[in-house]
Amino acid sequence: MSSAFIKKYVARREELKSLLCIGIDPEWEKLPHSCLSSDAPLFTFSKAIIDATQGYASAWKPNVAFFERFGSRGFLEFERYILYCKEINQNIPIVADAKRGDLANTAKEYAKYYFETLKVDALTVNAYMGRDSLLPYLDLGGFVFILCLTSNPSSADLQKLVLKKTNSYLYEEVSDFCGKLNAEYPGQVGMVMGGTHPAELAEMRRRHPKMYFLIPGYGAQGGSLEDIYAACGRDSLINSSRGVTLLSRNDDFVSLAKKKAEEIQSQMSQLLSSNV
Amino acid sequence: MSSAFIKKYVARREELKSLLCIGIDPEWEKLPHSCLSSDAPLFTFSKAIIDATQGYASAWKPNVAFFERFGSRGFLEFERYILYCKEINQNIPIVADAKRGDLANTAKEYAKYYFETLKVDALTVNAYMGRDSLLPYLDLGGFVFILCLTSNPSSADLQKLVLKKTNSYLYEEVSDFCGKLNAEYPGQVGMVMGGTHPAELAEMRRRHPKMYFLIPGYGAQGGSLEDIYAACGRDSLINSSRGVTLLSRNDDFVSLAKKKAEEIQSQMSQLLSSNV
Repeated sequence: MSSAFIKKYVARREELKSLLCIGIDPEWEKLPHSCLSSDAPLFTFSKAIIDATQGYASAWKPNVAFFERFGSRGFLEFERYILYCKEINQNIPIVADAKRGDLANTAKEYAKYYFETLKVDALTVNAYMGRDSLLPYLDLGGFVFILCLTSNPSSADLQKLVLKKTNSYLYEEVSDFCGKLNAEYPGQVGMVMGGTHPAELAEMRRRHPKMYFLIPGYGAQGGSLEDIYAACGRDSLINSSRGVTLLSRNDDFVSLAKKKAEEIQSQMSQLLSSNV
Repeated sequence: MSSAFIKKYVARREELKSLLCIGIDPEWEKLPHSCLSSDAPLFTFSKAIIDATQGYASAWKPNVAFFERFGSRGFLEFERYILYCKEINQNIPIVADAKRGDLANTAKEYAKYYFETLKVDALTVNAYMGRDSLLPYLDLGGFVFILCLTSNPSSADLQKLVLKKTNSYLYEEVSDFCGKLNAEYPGQVGMVMGGTHPAELAEMRRRHPKMYFLIPGYGAQGGSLEDIYAACGRDSLINSSRGVTLLSRNDDFVSLAKKKAEEIQSQMSQLLSSNV
């Protein structure tokens, strides 16, 4: 019942006793000055973060948009960086945060890039187009985290529309859809659940006790670690991006990232140890 | 009330009396043999299609996935091809079909790539994350086609869930959401409505008489031109991809594409002339 992704993640989680997923979002306007002057700024930044925090990361989550902003040049740096992650420690799973969603014959193309060429461990996707738009990832053996309740302020606009048949929110229906897909493709489907909604997160954990949650919204976006962990349990990846990686525009961003990652990992380790 | 995209599209539509949008989806396994042996297969194919059909296209719609499949190399060919489209005829609008959707600070990255760097005329996006995930495109003056009812068989899985408050389908609610956004950002928001659902398309036209529809699903996917046109009216882009561009794997794919595009454009021209 465990996919390659889950096996790798669980091994790493138990090694560090931590759920800390470090998001790598090289936002151009916020990059440290020394990275900007390099000839591969996105890679230089990402590599520095990897080097500084690799002892504390249970997973990496690069967001593709920050690389795609620079098109072919950006993807070149993305590819170097993915290779580097594997070089430094192939036991740390990589979740490519791309939120792709398209027709089956088109989704196949994304599936091939992320799961065959780059060989990342998981991909975030959008389920609005339904089942056939997701099968290409699953048929290749990939793991997908499907967007359910996202962490942004406008998440309610569509995700909290109430459905007639079940009297539940759209995101709850999406989560049931994820659950069914995961039953068919065991251990290949998880959900994105924003950490900015701890009550909803707890309810979703009751509803889906055995599914894996990817939880952005910790740190810069405001969720507290204790609340999120109490709500989501161990089968989760709790992500921090800006809150670890972009603490300074000077060269101390490296030592600050290391310190922050160590601090969170240690806090998580205490939480996990006291809640076995 | 007209955005730069709408002005450009309407001028071209009136010039050709046609709504034909040609989708450029260089699906590797189906590319003509001569393209595969080139050192830039995706560009070579796309350029050949552009050259053959530029007299008949009211818009171009490249799907980014087919380029992203090859990562940095693919994006390099995508960028060459977008430049080439503008070189050959800058009056033909380009709709980048990427179906992106992410948090505001991340969507900004996509917006900058597509609207500032590439300067495409429109982009397809996914609204599941709500209003704040769409504003970065609109704030840059871009035009977005938001996914409403898509053309694939599983479109009903989520898009046809019935909402409690309005007793309408989710995709109808999404369309109202698009309508409101378009009122705020006049002429910058349209919808993707699959041509495989002509009854729903007609109903959506009644509901949104003044919005622009991007309609995939004509041709290979099965919708008939008369039915679609009767349902959607003039303020629409009717897309054909495979049905024009991938008619042979031999070198006659060029002449076949030209012939097919000419045939559709002429058919559209008759339809438009008889329905002024």
